[in-house]
Amino acid sequence: MTRKVTTRFPNYLFTRDTNGRSIAKKASIGENVHLGSNVTIYPKVRIGDRSVVMDGAVLGRIPLPNMTMNRPVTSEYCDLVIGPESIIGCNTVLYTGSRLGSNVLVSDLTSIREGCSIGEGVIIGRGVMALYDCRIGSFSRIQDQAHLVGNMVIEEHVFIGMGVMTANDNDVYTSRFGSTAVCFQAPVIRSLAVIGTGAVLLPGIEIGMGAMVAAGAVVTRDVPAWTVVGGVPARHIREIPNEWRRAI
Amino acid sequence: MTRKVTTRFPNYLFTRDTNGRSIAKKASIGENVHLGSNVTIYPKVRIGDRSVVMDGAVLGRIPLPNMTMNRPVTSEYCDLVIGPESIIGCNTVLYTGSRLGSNVLVSDLTSIREGCSIGEGVIIGRGVMALYDCRIGSFSRIQDQAHLVGNMVIEEHVFIGMGVMTANDNDVYTSRFGSTAVCFQAPVIRSLAVIGTGAVLLPGIEIGMGAMVAAGAVVTRDVPAWTVVGGVPARHIREIPNEWRRAI
Amino acid sequence: MTRKVTTRFPNYLFTRDTNGRSIAKKASIGENVHLGSNVTIYPKVRIGDRSVVMDGAVLGRIPLPNMTMNRPVTSEYCDLVIGPESIIGCNTVLYTGSRLGSNVLVSDLTSIREGCSIGEGVIIGRGVMALYDCRIGSFSRIQDQAHLVGNMVIEEHVFIGMGVMTANDNDVYTSRFGSTAVCFQAPVIRSLAVIGTGAVLLPGIEIGMGAMVAAGAVVTRDVPAWTVVGGVPARHIREIPNEWRRAI
Repeated sequence: MTRKVTTRFPNYLFTRDTNGRSIAKKASIGENVHLGSNVTIYPKVRIGDRSVVMDGAVLGRIPLPNMTMNRPVTSEYCDLVIGPESIIGCNTVLYTGSRLGSNVLVSDLTSIREGCSIGEGVIIGRGVMALYDCRIGSFSRIQDQAHLVGNMVIEEHVFIGMGVMTANDNDVYTSRFGSTAVCFQAPVIRSLAVIGTGAVLLPGIEIGMGAMVAAGAVVTRDVPAWTVVGGVPARHIREIPNEWRRAI
Repeated sequence: MTRKVTTRFPNYLFTRDTNGRSIAKKASIGENVHLGSNVTIYPKVRIGDRSVVMDGAVLGRIPLPNMTMNRPVTSEYCDLVIGPESIIGCNTVLYTGSRLGSNVLVSDLTSIREGCSIGEGVIIGRGVMALYDCRIGSFSRIQDQAHLVGNMVIEEHVFIGMGVMTANDNDVYTSRFGSTAVCFQAPVIRSLAVIGTGAVLLPGIEIGMGAMVAAGAVVTRDVPAWTVVGGVPARHIREIPNEWRRAI
Repeated sequence: MTRKVTTRFPNYLFTRDTNGRSIAKKASIGENVHLGSNVTIYPKVRIGDRSVVMDGAVLGRIPLPNMTMNRPVTSEYCDLVIGPESIIGCNTVLYTGSRLGSNVLVSDLTSIREGCSIGEGVIIGRGVMALYDCRIGSFSRIQDQAHLVGNMVIEEHVFIGMGVMTANDNDVYTSRFGSTAVCFQAPVIRSLAVIGTGAVLLPGIEIGMGAMVAAGAVVTRDVPAWTVVGGVPARHIREIPNEWRRAI
């Protein structure tokens, strides 16, 4: 039911400056980067030119399992790459081994786990929690306090409203103890789709290109492209009007 | 579809003390103010007498746009005024240009954007995210993890439950690319109203004086004063009983 | 309607090291404990051997009331005990007077209030907010951004999904002003139960042993053991299949 994992915190070397910054010797900071006070930067972090890292942010931390965790976790430093002209907000926590494009904005008090790939110009709001291995396409926006499960796929120009919640394990009832195989199936959101405030997306569903999910909906089945759904459980409401399609 | 914004981080001067505090030379700290460790205080912050700022809090940060943001953002320091005897929690992030009354409690890991006006005695819980230009009337309470959209109006003695989500843009499907005009219409909550845990409030709706929204409701239309609504979408359930009105 | 509370921040003595750590002289740190940068550790914190406290975490803060708070709050340092081989995430805030068992994982940007009791091997995700006096049984898991109200009881091996919200006061409409007695009745979740992503649990309801609440459900009544409920409001869907019971 549980399984022992050795949790040893790797050694690393930091420099500590007079403004409260702890910067690993193996980190790489670009030109004209602004670092706020009290930031912590772990090894293998690479920050692109002209980026801003606000106060209290922690970049490149490793995942640390306790003995009861099901999913295997590797506590090793990998490259955390932040593209040029990006902004990382105050007290935000980015894990090791993710890749952010240029002009990405990650706001305050947000956390992004390891293995994520985030395209150019993406905006991620405050208090957002993204799990491991998420892919977020260029110019998509994730509003405050949304949750992205592990392995989630979000294509380009997607809009995800405040507090949207997602799930990736339909078999959690049995899989949580490791007694059955876990087959994580995260939601997939095709390009140009909009997910309304407070909606819930169940495991493995696909939101089609340009589709729209109404606020507060619970989506239990695939949503065809260019349609609007809403309610609990979410049902077809209408097609996306032609004038909307032309306007985007 | 996107638009270039010059993002330059303004220069400022800080003093750095031995307890990890970075305090801008142009900040004003009242008498008997307690500052925790590792706080960062930007220019034009004014903290009233006998207030407490807990560890890791960041006060007066400026908003920083990336190139893909629709809404114009001004990255300039304005007054952030915190009234006397107020409390700002650990690792909380307050933006520049807001105004908090006396005896305000903002708890841990919360963020309040620029231009907000928060009355006397307001309590704001942990993990709350308030966007720009919100008005919160005296003695209102915003519970943990609630989200307040930009321009939201909350009158006095309002109670907003945990995880309540709000929206302010019914036209987000088309407005998100800037190709149609954006007309933000935030919810308005009249005095003495109660919003239940996990409710979702849609753009432009008005919750009448003393009304009550049940937990988990999705409110798509105005709620008349002194009525109770609930469900998805929210429907009229009953009038507020007279004995309740007398008791508040 | 409101009531004056004297808010005085107690005096304490800290040592400040070169890595930005503020550690109260009365704190007790076990052997082979890793402390990240910029952590703040208040008096009466006791950290077990081989535990890890990540960067920016604040351990042992006292609750501080403002003048408008209904519930009496004691601003005194009590023991905050963290068992051996536990992990506390980045920028997380633990209050004074709670007790965490061994091998507990509390992830980043989470806050746990005073008086909580957390069993061995519990996993608490990122952005979780637990209020005062919660009990969480051994090996239970609380996913990211969930909210646990005050006095909540969670037995062993429970799984609580992302963004689950809870409430503990059915009389909030009148009790919020202190004009009627408050009788907090938090949800009780019996062992082996599963609560789906984004569900809302109302005051005083009991989720029976091994029961399952579907994602997005609003639970307004007790849920019998070994049954599945879902919807708004939540209704009986089926019994838990025998093969599921055997698999856990």
